[in-house]
Amino acid sequence: MFNYRRTHTCGQLRLSDVKKQVTLSGWVNRRRDHGGLIFIDLRDRFGITQIVFDPVHNPNAHKLAESLRSEFVLSIKGTVRPRAEGMANPNLATGEIEIEVNEFEILSKAKTPPFSVCDEKIVVNEETRLKYRYLDLRRGDILDKLIKRHQACLMVREYLDKEGFVEVQTPMLGKSTPEGSRDYLVPSRVSPGSFYALPQSPQLYKQLLMVGGLDRYFQIATCFRDEDLRADRQPEFTQIDIEMSFVTPEDLFPIIEGMLKDIFKKIAGFEPKTPFRHMTYQEAMDKYGTDKPDLRFGMELSDVSDIAAKSSFSVFLEGLQNGNIVKGFKATGDFSRKTIDELTTFVSQFGIKGLAWMKMQAEGLQSNIVKFFPDEQQKALIERFDLKAGDIVFLIADTKDKANQGLDHLRRKVAKDLGLMKSDEYAFLWVREFPCFGYNEEEKRLESMHHPFTSPFPEDIHLLDTDPLKIRSSGYDIVLNGYEIGGGSQRIHNGDLQERIFEALKLTPKDIEEKFGFFVDALKYGTPPHLGIALGLDRVIMLATGTDNIRDVIAFPKTQKASDLMNECPSPVSREQLNELKIAIKS
Amino acid sequence: MFNYRRTHTCGQLRLSDVKKQVTLSGWVNRRRDHGGLIFIDLRDRFGITQIVFDPVHNPNAHKLAESLRSEFVLSIKGTVRPRAEGMANPNLATGEIEIEVNEFEILSKAKTPPFSVCDEKIVVNEETRLKYRYLDLRRGDILDKLIKRHQACLMVREYLDKEGFVEVQTPMLGKSTPEGSRDYLVPSRVSPGSFYALPQSPQLYKQLLMVGGLDRYFQIATCFRDEDLRADRQPEFTQIDIEMSFVTPEDLFPIIEGMLKDIFKKIAGFEPKTPFRHMTYQEAMDKYGTDKPDLRFGMELSDVSDIAAKSSFSVFLEGLQNGNIVKGFKATGDFSRKTIDELTTFVSQFGIKGLAWMKMQAEGLQSNIVKFFPDEQQKALIERFDLKAGDIVFLIADTKDKANQGLDHLRRKVAKDLGLMKSDEYAFLWVREFPCFGYNEEEKRLESMHHPFTSPFPEDIHLLDTDPLKIRSSGYDIVLNGYEIGGGSQRIHNGDLQERIFEALKLTPKDIEEKFGFFVDALKYGTPPHLGIALGLDRVIMLATGTDNIRDVIAFPKTQKASDLMNECPSPVSREQLNELKIAIKS
Repeated sequence: MFNYRRTHTCGQLRLSDVKKQVTLSGWVNRRRDHGGLIFIDLRDRFGITQIVFDPVHNPNAHKLAESLRSEFVLSIKGTVRPRAEGMANPNLATGEIEIEVNEFEILSKAKTPPFSVCDEKIVVNEETRLKYRYLDLRRGDILDKLIKRHQACLMVREYLDKEGFVEVQTPMLGKSTPEGSRDYLVPSRVSPGSFYALPQSPQLYKQLLMVGGLDRYFQIATCFRDEDLRADRQPEFTQIDIEMSFVTPEDLFPIIEGMLKDIFKKIAGFEPKTPFRHMTYQEAMDKYGTDKPDLRFGMELSDVSDIAAKSSFSVFLEGLQNGNIVKGFKATGDFSRKTIDELTTFVSQFGIKGLAWMKMQAEGLQSNIVKFFPDEQQKALIERFDLKAGDIVFLIADTKDKANQGLDHLRRKVAKDLGLMKSDEYAFLWVREFPCFGYNEEEKRLESMHHPFTSPFPEDIHLLDTDPLKIRSSGYDIVLNGYEIGGGSQRIHNGDLQERIFEALKLTPKDIEEKFGFFVDALKYGTPPHLGIALGLDRVIMLATGTDNIRDVIAFPKTQKASDLMNECPSPVSREQLNELKIAIKS
Repeated sequence: MFNYRRTHTCGQLRLSDVKKQVTLSGWVNRRRDHGGLIFIDLRDRFGITQIVFDPVHNPNAHKLAESLRSEFVLSIKGTVRPRAEGMANPNLATGEIEIEVNEFEILSKAKTPPFSVCDEKIVVNEETRLKYRYLDLRRGDILDKLIKRHQACLMVREYLDKEGFVEVQTPMLGKSTPEGSRDYLVPSRVSPGSFYALPQSPQLYKQLLMVGGLDRYFQIATCFRDEDLRADRQPEFTQIDIEMSFVTPEDLFPIIEGMLKDIFKKIAGFEPKTPFRHMTYQEAMDKYGTDKPDLRFGMELSDVSDIAAKSSFSVFLEGLQNGNIVKGFKATGDFSRKTIDELTTFVSQFGIKGLAWMKMQAEGLQSNIVKFFPDEQQKALIERFDLKAGDIVFLIADTKDKANQGLDHLRRKVAKDLGLMKSDEYAFLWVREFPCFGYNEEEKRLESMHHPFTSPFPEDIHLLDTDPLKIRSSGYDIVLNGYEIGGGSQRIHNGDLQERIFEALKLTPKDIEEKFGFFVDALKYGTPPHLGIALGLDRVIMLATGTDNIRDVIAFPKTQKASDLMNECPSPVSREQLNELKIAIKS
């Protein structure tokens, strides 16, 4: 049998290796015939090396080489030699040498691939790339991101280990407690009619590890949510899951910041400044209209309802009478009427009926609505937004929630169009002091902003029966470039308080007992104060590798319909399998 | 609020810290009152520190301390002082000091635990320990094993990274291809009637990563098998999963050996000698009656059918006529008739009808069947087993398979009783040259000894249509102390051969297409020769930490009925959940 064990990779040989006898193996990236010679670019994940088949030197090998096609797998034995004068390729690490073949073997032939593997510039639609993921991997870009992901995970583990954390694997087959999102269920064969649930997060397990005295836990954990997918979501995702005892958030933040610093330095070549900025939820909503503001650029929002109230612009005045607000931000740039019309259409998708604007020019404010603003109010606007010639103000009049939502999207859209969203810049932010609860209008009940294990501010707990929406939460989110990349909280460590919170969320005593009884009970056996965080690994790697497609950092991702185009799962199963599980499909 | 941030752990303080003001937090391990003083052993996972409440020094703290009970969580501020003359505890790292309390707070009260946490010597039944796993963790033994598991995983990752392997996460939601064991299924909500399967192993994905050119892959992967559980099995388990391209098994073995050497050195304090021993499947079956022999001790089996055939012992003679064999081994020790009777009962559970024996004494062989053996045959037996005075030979006459099975069990039982199974000794072994196929009598078809992706010996492939049971496989198992801790193989890298193997296993063309079509197709786009292995992490850690209970190395294990006694999963789910999935439970 031909011995295909390599002496070198295809990215390794240099001029200093000339005259060495080597064995390389890899894929035919390209074949070129000229001057009677056949040239092969042999590719592996480490690089490309030029192979020469010379009919004079080795007529048999040369003849066999005529049958070579793209993506054939070869093993080559030959001699390293310098390339001919003027033929070196400075773009290739191995560009100064080539291999003269002594003997070789075709290890594997290849059908013609459905898209070019060797030319990364050719754009292939994502469906085809996903169906032939194994060929897409050969193109290098995805593989490069997977390698960076591997490096980041290793770094995270080494970092957290040094900080005294212990990685513990928690079960994949857990209990269904569908309070957050929808669970993926797994029917039990041994207990027919019963089900496991795949974890939405290891939340309860990690808190139980704190009850058990582990002190510092982490896990790079696969989690699952059966939700209708958005572009940056996958049915299974990975989180860096962390929990600590006997500490406060001030102990946690520097640990997380140090970890992210390591990742972004190594993967993105960017060293974030620490400590990260902090902001309250209220400030974030006021200044950016969102709890995950992109701080790579300014353009803060200002509420100008007070100024608008003194205008004679009826659209504003009527809105204000109905309790709406007028809010906006300034941008610097040249905005044509056409651009402004496009932006008006853009905000309309968020239910915003109109986009008002005023341009600051040398002679003062200019727009179709300036006439409704007396001089004093124009002056007030100029001051409020600190307007200089060349600036434009966008204003939206709507309910507070809708105005904030519309302005958040508009602010990011304008920033993107103005080139202010730099892909190699990273602005980290901690957001804190969220409300503990929101109100679910549909189900007429409170719901947790974070999750029901989040501790309220101790000084606010007395509001639980009287004014729960005023209770602040000990939760914190970490935000990067407009993405929430993680969130956590101080947990409730008192079983009685945990029960009260479940009751406030309108869980029945039966529900509490069946779903969380064991957990509430556990808290009563001596639970340390503890807190934690979960960071979205996929998103972190996505941002660190400069893509906006979460599928680019996952080896075998699913589509937005939660299917794998390569192996076509989910798929039907046999009647026997269903019979064993005692379940039936309803039509 | 009381500031419970610790200055030290409960295992940290020494005489050199005397006079320091410190804050410790932890659990009340024990409380002792004497001489007007209250002593608390405060415990965390790092150790125990003695706390003194002195009514003279601080009457308020002393009074509050009277309410303290076991497992209360405290935070203590106080002064480090040396223990009184003669009161030092040499068994405790902190045994020379104690803390005089200045102030403290009860962070959490505790109900009386269902079993003693502070006294590890009290044996608690495993059901109770599993139900209160979080309290079991506080007892230290399980936590210690989890920490060792964490260290081993980190070591494996760092080792494989250095060897050029890339850890890639493969999907948990995969395709059902129930060729090996039974799949756990996950109903799809988006595609009603379709299912995902949880991976039995990342086999196809890792091979596709080789097709994609990743070159060296690994993953510490959670896998699932819905089988009726044996004592050392769990429905979800973890494997160190490895795959490489362009290499031979001789490249893989030293990598695995180096990795295991690191683990056992660090975790078990044992440095295995490398390279590990190799043995063919045939030799293992001949000498030990099993393909996973325990090599910590000798007692090799010998087939003595030829000698028995010349005896006049009718039981042996009749068996031999029916194609049975007579096989046995020698042990050294004092075996009473009572012991021999017990061993006879022991082997009967494997369907063995009788256990023959002969003792070697100064005057020669002695037993109830010696008389059937002429002198020459007695001499032959003495020579075959190299018998010395004090030895005993056990002989079993049965079919080859049953004799091997019975002798394997008996050999290990006898070794255990003789104290030859040392828990701090580790005997590693590679077993190779397995048959490629076995014959499934029930389904009247060939089945793979390893799995259908295992390459046959190239020189044996021609037997596929004529004598497939003679084909040797490129598979290899790694065996430790009688446990199979891993297995792997050279893979088939030719799509056509892969199809032929599927056909030989009596998969229909429709099955092949539906289940493996995409994979067979992938192999045809240029596949490198590749091979790999999967090591059972749970078993490796179990052996390295010296336990024989797999549940001791898993944070939240399941019982043999695949249930979690702590959170009582699997459990019923709501009608709404089933409706959304369009499945029904059959009664």
